[in-house]
Amino acid sequence: MKEAIYSQKVEFGDCDPARIVWFPNFFRWIDAASRHFFVECGVPPWHETERTLGIIGTPLVDTHAKFVKTASYGDVLQIHTSIAEWRGKSFVQRHRVMRANSEGAAGGADLIMECDEVRIFAARRDGEPTAIRALPVPEAIRKLCE
Amino acid sequence: MKEAIYSQKVEFGDCDPARIVWFPNFFRWIDAASRHFFVECGVPPWHETERTLGIIGTPLVDTHAKFVKTASYGDVLQIHTSIAEWRGKSFVQRHRVMRANSEGAAGGADLIMECDEVRIFAARRDGEPTAIRALPVPEAIRKLCE
Amino acid sequence: MKEAIYSQKVEFGDCDPARIVWFPNFFRWIDAASRHFFVECGVPPWHETERTLGIIGTPLVDTHAKFVKTASYGDVLQIHTSIAEWRGKSFVQRHRVMRANSEGAAGGADLIMECDEVRIFAARRDGEPTAIRALPVPEAIRKLCE
Amino acid sequence: MKEAIYSQKVEFGDCDPARIVWFPNFFRWIDAASRHFFVECGVPPWHETERTLGIIGTPLVDTHAKFVKTASYGDVLQIHTSIAEWRGKSFVQRHRVMRANSEGAAGGADLIMECDEVRIFAARRDGEPTAIRALPVPEAIRKLCE
Repeated sequence: MKEAIYSQKVEFGDCDPARIVWFPNFFRWIDAASRHFFVECGVPPWHETERTLGIIGTPLVDTHAKFVKTASYGDVLQIHTSIAEWRGKSFVQRHRVMRANSEGAAGGADLIMECDEVRIFAARRDGEPTAIRALPVPEAIRKLCE
Repeated sequence: MKEAIYSQKVEFGDCDPARIVWFPNFFRWIDAASRHFFVECGVPPWHETERTLGIIGTPLVDTHAKFVKTASYGDVLQIHTSIAEWRGKSFVQRHRVMRANSEGAAGGADLIMECDEVRIFAARRDGEPTAIRALPVPEAIRKLCE
Repeated sequence: MKEAIYSQKVEFGDCDPARIVWFPNFFRWIDAASRHFFVECGVPPWHETERTLGIIGTPLVDTHAKFVKTASYGDVLQIHTSIAEWRGKSFVQRHRVMRANSEGAAGGADLIMECDEVRIFAARRDGEPTAIRALPVPEAIRKLCE
Repeated sequence: MKEAIYSQKVEFGDCDPARIVWFPNFFRWIDAASRHFFVECGVPPWHETERTLGIIGTPLVDTHAKFVKTASYGDVLQIHTSIAEWRGKSFVQRHRVMRANSEGAAGGADLIMECDEVRIFAARRDGEPTAIRALPVPEAIRKLCE
């Protein structure tokens, strides 16, 4: 199973008045990690797949996240991303956000949060500029990612 | 059961190259809707509760979201927020994001996404500037919100 | 000279560990105020003007902002937007961000920040998906905005 | 004159429906580059300087930015940051955002945007949680940065 690692430094402006990462920022980074996974596997950028396969991206249909520890500015995070499950018209992408600049009780990096996403390969619906529909998972892309 | 409604207009910059709302923005708005709920119920701002109750906010420990329809700029969203469950040291806050400028098949507003969050009332841990701990749900706050 | 007013509530997550608005958020709101001005003047959304006039939006070429007072969560801001100058292929849009929930020394609303932007009406360059060029200011749009 | 370089990859979600970087994101990155400069020069994090010098950060009082070329997702940006001028109670920080994955006509990296910021070293005003005031530029910090 392929895994990609996306690194992200936490900045001052990513934190809120409680001085910890404001949680929507985790989703910004996880979305970048999601695309990074496909890039690392050799999948072309979405503006290319739009022309070749009709795929405009991999929008979310479901996400479930657990927040384990807080992070703050100065921390360096590493997001470990893999595909946990392939389905007919969707897939489950798993992200584990670790703090690279620390060690947890067991001697490994601290787990900050983890997230399972259900995503689809989306195409536009004809004639509606913002409506999308799920395509069957393309074999060519699946092979690159396994 | 109390419900608060938070309105949010979708802007051009909230949308991504696929021309639909970039999903982390939903979490920005839901976080605002979460705090809006407490304000509507009469709970003071967190910089006040920090002094009076030691509460610095209500950070997330778990969130589960389903994305039903896309939204784009020009849309007006209404987020319906309530407390679905009170637990000893946490609570479940439920958010339903509806498109106010449209009607679904059943004649009501379109459901765009929905989200169940588990949140805590957090205090700082002594001596650690960014570490937090969960407090028992304060009775006074619970009464204001029921 | 037409003026449009865009209202924006400051949220907890818009503020940084210093508890004041993290300044890039002002530019998010000003960009929304910029588009709001055109909408209020009757200019169609950019996905329509892309089809009719080839205009994909009004990207910035220059911005100059002064930050006068801080704002924090709970504040309600009003952004007063107008066109200060029309040029051949660009225009100067002026934004004044006032705090609506306060009064300054002179009895009026507090000025929080102000910003002069130079923007263009942009079209795509042929064959380059992300390259843009400035169009002459369209007479029809200028008339709507004066 | 010291210079620090801050690297930033442009992500899908940083781009707007015109497929180019939504400009407020440049200010997010420049703010990170501003703090990165001080960190590289050996200045402690703001939560430490708050205790030692009363300095909570370096908020903006004025910024002037020119946008020269567009950037899009997949681009790698390098922000070159230096102090262009020291004043009594403020300083001018200069940022040049270059595209590292490309070459301009002259054979060097493309200039994407540049920005001169006037910032202050800020302390809290007594008794007002969100009001700030400018301190004289601390000699110790200035020496680290020259």
